[in-house]
Amino acid sequence: MAQPEDEAELVRKWQQITVISPYSRELGLRLHKVEPDWCVIAVNPDGRVVGNLATGVVHGGVVTALLDSCYGLAIFVRMNVLRAMATLDLRIDYLKAATPGREIYGGAVCYKLGHELAFVRGAAYHESPDDPIATSSAIFMFTGGPVISLENALDKMKGDTP
Amino acid sequence: MAQPEDEAELVRKWQQITVISPYSRELGLRLHKVEPDWCVIAVNPDGRVVGNLATGVVHGGVVTALLDSCYGLAIFVRMNVLRAMATLDLRIDYLKAATPGREIYGGAVCYKLGHELAFVRGAAYHESPDDPIATSSAIFMFTGGPVISLENALDKMKGDTP
Amino acid sequence: MAQPEDEAELVRKWQQITVISPYSRELGLRLHKVEPDWCVIAVNPDGRVVGNLATGVVHGGVVTALLDSCYGLAIFVRMNVLRAMATLDLRIDYLKAATPGREIYGGAVCYKLGHELAFVRGAAYHESPDDPIATSSAIFMFTGGPVISLENALDKMKGDTP
Amino acid sequence: MAQPEDEAELVRKWQQITVISPYSRELGLRLHKVEPDWCVIAVNPDGRVVGNLATGVVHGGVVTALLDSCYGLAIFVRMNVLRAMATLDLRIDYLKAATPGREIYGGAVCYKLGHELAFVRGAAYHESPDDPIATSSAIFMFTGGPVISLENALDKMKGDTP
Repeated sequence: MAQPEDEAELVRKWQQITVISPYSRELGLRLHKVEPDWCVIAVNPDGRVVGNLATGVVHGGVVTALLDSCYGLAIFVRMNVLRAMATLDLRIDYLKAATPGREIYGGAVCYKLGHELAFVRGAAYHESPDDPIATSSAIFMFTGGPVISLENALDKMKGDTP
Repeated sequence: MAQPEDEAELVRKWQQITVISPYSRELGLRLHKVEPDWCVIAVNPDGRVVGNLATGVVHGGVVTALLDSCYGLAIFVRMNVLRAMATLDLRIDYLKAATPGREIYGGAVCYKLGHELAFVRGAAYHESPDDPIATSSAIFMFTGGPVISLENALDKMKGDTP
Repeated sequence: MAQPEDEAELVRKWQQITVISPYSRELGLRLHKVEPDWCVIAVNPDGRVVGNLATGVVHGGVVTALLDSCYGLAIFVRMNVLRAMATLDLRIDYLKAATPGREIYGGAVCYKLGHELAFVRGAAYHESPDDPIATSSAIFMFTGGPVISLENALDKMKGDTP
Repeated sequence: MAQPEDEAELVRKWQQITVISPYSRELGLRLHKVEPDWCVIAVNPDGRVVGNLATGVVHGGVVTALLDSCYGLAIFVRMNVLRAMATLDLRIDYLKAATPGREIYGGAVCYKLGHELAFVRGAAYHESPDDPIATSSAIFMFTGGPVISLENALDKMKGDTP
């Protein structure tokens, strides 16, 4: 089993993957937990992502983006490598409105991993995935290209940054 | 039938509803067409909404946000009034990657309108909904509260702005 | 907590609800387990429900019917009463083919119960829901009408039978 | 363009594919129309497939089975050959109850055909797909194996029948 210090190091490494895309950085996604069967990313919705002015509730597109990012991470973490892939389809059920201004967590698991497809499910929540804001499932498709280790991906990212 | 000048005026009015939420303005949503059975909103994805650094492809969450906004609009346009509502669920199928940097259109129709629920479907595309980037369907639920005419909503928005 | 003998009695009672519809009897649905947070129904697919002659695999419609029935049961069991309702939408992901001729279990939980809507998820499997044939989620809508206790429903059924 | 007599012949041929599986025959599926972009199958629900005894409404699983069969047909017709494939996922939205005892039509189109995946959408209805009982979309995956022409498949079926 991983030691606590190793876990912090693991979170630090995967955090860089979590915000590898400009949109993830724009949303301010923050890796919260990384386990083979449950990865959690947090987003702190500021005023710019409000979807309903009257209620202050975050836009549904942000919840979807959070879960979508969480799915990618959960697949990479389960494989322990990175591969090019694309969301094939995604379904989201909204169960209750997010509390305005409150941090939202997105948790996900890759529950089936095939050669071409990865099946994921997850939830967005404040307190616990058992009291969800939204539940969701999706299928990702690997789109070819090389398999890259986490270390190599991080090295490459370092090289890309001036 | 509406005269051409009326149509431009109609687009101008509904454009204000299209960007009623901070997130819609943040994404730069622009109303393209407003017809009772097909509303189209355009988004010009800039560098901040890139989801994949290697390919420059827009983040899926932005496509979902575009369609989600388009659904709300299509329901309001079909009713010709505004009512408080929430996305109940949404499914999106991705058929091909969006071309980086190119404007994305989201088109939607409310194909069934009930007392409590509205059923919508739509597509995201560059050229034509027949060659879609994504197809999608969703159900919205009316959450109570007053029915507001478009004119009243616009008046209220004017009053809210200093 | 329910005593073992009570549990057998509970299964016996809910079994009658499980096969309340002609199609459920036609498919030979058999209630396997009834707990507030996990109901399981089994179907023994015979030759008539084969969907693929070459492989002998059961038709997907039968798996959907199994889960749909399981959802209704899970909602009734959680409420501990019966109410008229309808499937609003249902999504099913197929992960692997069912083994021809082998009994299929469908398990479901109603994970959110509202005044108008009930949210459910479930899985079809041979051995364990962790190695699923299919995973699925759905939303049901209550369609009005009286709330009927299990006992009254069973009494009424007895009365209907000559 | 096909002559009327050719069209009847085409329907006759594809009808044999429509009821290639035992479950399709059990449900009594009848091919109604076969066009490259819209295939229609009819089912005449008898008492055995009733899902709700109080209302006499057909079981949702039968509507799903109808659409699932229609999807397979639409893909084969678009390719004009047969290939082994499996439903990857399917979503169905129910808009209104089917009228008890009345014939139900399922129409479908394969709107995107790839090397590995086929995307379909469709509707179940009595009168017109514009007044649907249910709308639906699905993704099918080709599972390998030979590509078989319609004629060869029909020849093989003849050989299988004593």
